Amino acid sequence: MIAPWEMEPVGPLTAGIDVGGTKTALVVTDSRDRVLYEQVVATNRASLVGQIAELVDTARRQLRTESGRDVEAIGVAIPGRVDTAHGSVRMAVNLGITDLALGPLLKAESGLPSFVEHDARAAALWLSERDTPTGCPSLAYLAVGTGISAGIVIDGELLRGDNGLAGEVGHVAADPDGPVCVCGLRGCLEAVAAGPAIARQADEAIAAGRSTSMDAHPSPADVFRAGLAGDELASEITGSVADHLARAIRALALTVGVKRVVLGGGVAAAGPALLEPIRARIDHERAISPLVETAFADATLELLSPVTEAGARGAAAIARRRIGSPQREEVGER
Amino acid sequence: MIAPWEMEPVGPLTAGIDVGGTKTALVVTDSRDRVLYEQVVATNRASLVGQIAELVDTARRQLRTESGRDVEAIGVAIPGRVDTAHGSVRMAVNLGITDLALGPLLKAESGLPSFVEHDARAAALWLSERDTPTGCPSLAYLAVGTGISAGIVIDGELLRGDNGLAGEVGHVAADPDGPVCVCGLRGCLEAVAAGPAIARQADEAIAAGRSTSMDAHPSPADVFRAGLAGDELASEITGSVADHLARAIRALALTVGVKRVVLGGGVAAAGPALLEPIRARIDHERAISPLVETAFADATLELLSPVTEAGARGAAAIARRRIGSPQREEVGER
Repeated sequence: MIAPWEMEPVGPLTAGIDVGGTKTALVVTDSRDRVLYEQVVATNRASLVGQIAELVDTARRQLRTESGRDVEAIGVAIPGRVDTAHGSVRMAVNLGITDLALGPLLKAESGLPSFVEHDARAAALWLSERDTPTGCPSLAYLAVGTGISAGIVIDGELLRGDNGLAGEVGHVAADPDGPVCVCGLRGCLEAVAAGPAIARQADEAIAAGRSTSMDAHPSPADVFRAGLAGDELASEITGSVADHLARAIRALALTVGVKRVVLGGGVAAAGPALLEPIRARIDHERAISPLVETAFADATLELLSPVTEAGARGAAAIARRRIGSPQREEVGER
Repeated sequence: MIAPWEMEPVGPLTAGIDVGGTKTALVVTDSRDRVLYEQVVATNRASLVGQIAELVDTARRQLRTESGRDVEAIGVAIPGRVDTAHGSVRMAVNLGITDLALGPLLKAESGLPSFVEHDARAAALWLSERDTPTGCPSLAYLAVGTGISAGIVIDGELLRGDNGLAGEVGHVAADPDGPVCVCGLRGCLEAVAAGPAIARQADEAIAAGRSTSMDAHPSPADVFRAGLAGDELASEITGSVADHLARAIRALALTVGVKRVVLGGGVAAAGPALLEPIRARIDHERAISPLVETAFADATLELLSPVTEAGARGAAAIARRRIGSPQREEVGER
């Protein structure tokens, strides 16, 4: 998978893995952030560590054969409350993880130094570094997939928060009378606007006999497609998702003051069908409120294709940074 | 007003003024943050600059007479979008300010270097510095008065945001079907939970014939008092305010990750009648959701008495810092 024009990787190669509720992606990149190898599989929740180790192993074998190079470290991007010092992850509700010593287990399995970072933060850091110095020093990456969370970079620094939960906007109240969220609370943003919420709303309406052009059990992508094609039920659902995400983006702009918001995650695969309705709602609010107009003046709202694998590339970059750090033994790879 | 045990002020004296939608407070403090003079008046929206200059003038005359000391600089804490470099303030909707060159005007009027800071940020910085090094390096000060806004300190640094609007959580959506806010949008937190919203809800219910022990046109303090005394209408209103503020605090904990939240502003004068229902709601969410439990574990939620004048003291501290800074001419007092 190494393209001919990239036959000479620079610096240490690292593997970055983004473990999502639906799919797991692996990339191997060099120090210039060039992708030398890439693979995407369905997430095996029953054997996360085994699956990651196997993915890395396959990549290493192929890279050794093709270029004689090996992977030197592993970075994993994963949702939940990540302890980067110990490489552990807790409360990744969408993966069924209560507490997992992911870094140490992966090191034992692969023999490679293994680091763990929160998925949205890994992606946000990658976006921030990729676009510096031309870009904005602060940004929020809002990942909308099986869950919803944000990675927030302020002046080039990742915001972690004293409680380690900075960016967990998926569990901010969006509709207090809404459905119960996987976290236990009612009406979290995630419970009304993430992928499963989109599918559930369609399922419920279809089960209740609403007429629609959609087949039974549509995916979020099916719902967005049907909405674009004029299906009334689908438009209602995607309109509600856009309402909630536009408000969440306003909340980010008026809480942390970011002028750059990047939307990503599996649901973002819907592309303009997701982005444009959100943009229209923000533009409408800007026309009404001088405060919102100021908040979003010169602001950018972008869509990151899920194919970009920002989380996996960020994880690979973080692994490379960690093995290059003199504090590696202290902070990293136990 | 100088207490006998404080007869020898240390370092330069500065005046700090907190301009609120309802009242304006002035303090004069020394470099040990001791209050040497204090006065609170009703805000004169028609003549803000004149009122501040007059307050400062009165304080200076008294201090000169009593201690032979003079005020060396002025700091003003004010809501809205503050440009600290130019000393200007825009969009202070609750004060009817569109754009005001407050610092330059005040300097022309008083002859003293004059600095301007956002009110909640001034208070947050004061709280953060007062409690360091024993306290938490990060905190959010949530001011609930005529408006609602937050001052956010991350690792000892004020968060301003690329758009200058970090902390403007009063205009985050709280109830999308709620009343229209002064900012123009519908259902902002401020429109359902700030002082005027509390008074308006009582007025509307009384006008609609709801039975209550409250007199016509109760103040927010009256509503909290009646709620404590068991008045059903008042309890409904204060319960709804507590719902909204508890959600706003959860949003702060899950967006910027703070473990210390301080509630202040005029509405906070209600004391435990405001704080305890909020605490109860957060405790309830903690019991349901492991994520919220983690977010608030070891966290503190405090109430700051409005008598503390955190905004005015923060403004005085900022003025002292600015005149002590070598960059004063560049950044400050034009």
